Amino acid sequence: MTGVPPTPMEQALLEAEAAAARGEVPVGAVITNAAGDVIASDGNRMRERLDPTAHAEVLVIRETSKILGELRLTDCDLYVTLEPCPMCAAAISFARIRRLYYGASDPKSGAVDHGPRLFQTNTCHHAPEVYGGLAERRAARLLLDFFKSRR
Amino acid sequence: MTGVPPTPMEQALLEAEAAAARGEVPVGAVITNAAGDVIASDGNRMRERLDPTAHAEVLVIRETSKILGELRLTDCDLYVTLEPCPMCAAAISFARIRRLYYGASDPKSGAVDHGPRLFQTNTCHHAPEVYGGLAERRAARLLLDFFKSRR
Repeated sequence: MTGVPPTPMEQALLEAEAAAARGEVPVGAVITNAAGDVIASDGNRMRERLDPTAHAEVLVIRETSKILGELRLTDCDLYVTLEPCPMCAAAISFARIRRLYYGASDPKSGAVDHGPRLFQTNTCHHAPEVYGGLAERRAARLLLDFFKSRR
Repeated sequence: MTGVPPTPMEQALLEAEAAAARGEVPVGAVITNAAGDVIASDGNRMRERLDPTAHAEVLVIRETSKILGELRLTDCDLYVTLEPCPMCAAAISFARIRRLYYGASDPKSGAVDHGPRLFQTNTCHHAPEVYGGLAERRAARLLLDFFKSRR
């Protein structure tokens, strides 16, 4: 099969779908380098790994740091299907991610444009550029379907 | 050698000292179960593991979840030598830690009694009981000495 490769956000959505198929809350994340190449791509794995910190964003940050041999991913951008929680927002700040692109808003647990709005606090030492609302409907639909199917 | 075993906070301080000896920012953490037995004990390992998320608290939460086979550590208490950052505070909330005991305050990066005060926000779905200021002077001294030695 030939065809156009998926955009990073499309790839993050595929990771979210794969997470749902594993019984995980469907969130996927991708990190690209300055050239736009995908370095790491993963979905939630809390249940699978029995690790409450195994959110998609944490997993791709950890993988990218390992691959690049760097704690600071200053040229990297992170794509995630859901607005990051405080844990992931802080990890994104520590990793010095350049740009954050997220899909669905998360008024209940998000920490970027809701709740503590971490990147806007004066104890946040690095804030990425933030672009919300990418593929928002598809990202939100995945989550809604997942929670509906479990009721 | 016989003697009184260290308290959990003393053990966390020993982990912080060991972290300093590895060239890591000296923070240590310990998790105990309902009986007060230590389940996991570790210090910062960001540099060693090339992992910006490898804070002491995240490491002991991950280890405890693995050991107990549970994502929710509802009967567990966490001792840490420094007030947790937003990443660790959120991880503590996700893991449903019962009580948090911390040493030195961290006005610059803490997220419990400073900055975003995560446990007091209405998007925080579980807040532990918090006890700050345990062994505060010894915990703070470790950090001060570490940063002084690197200037």
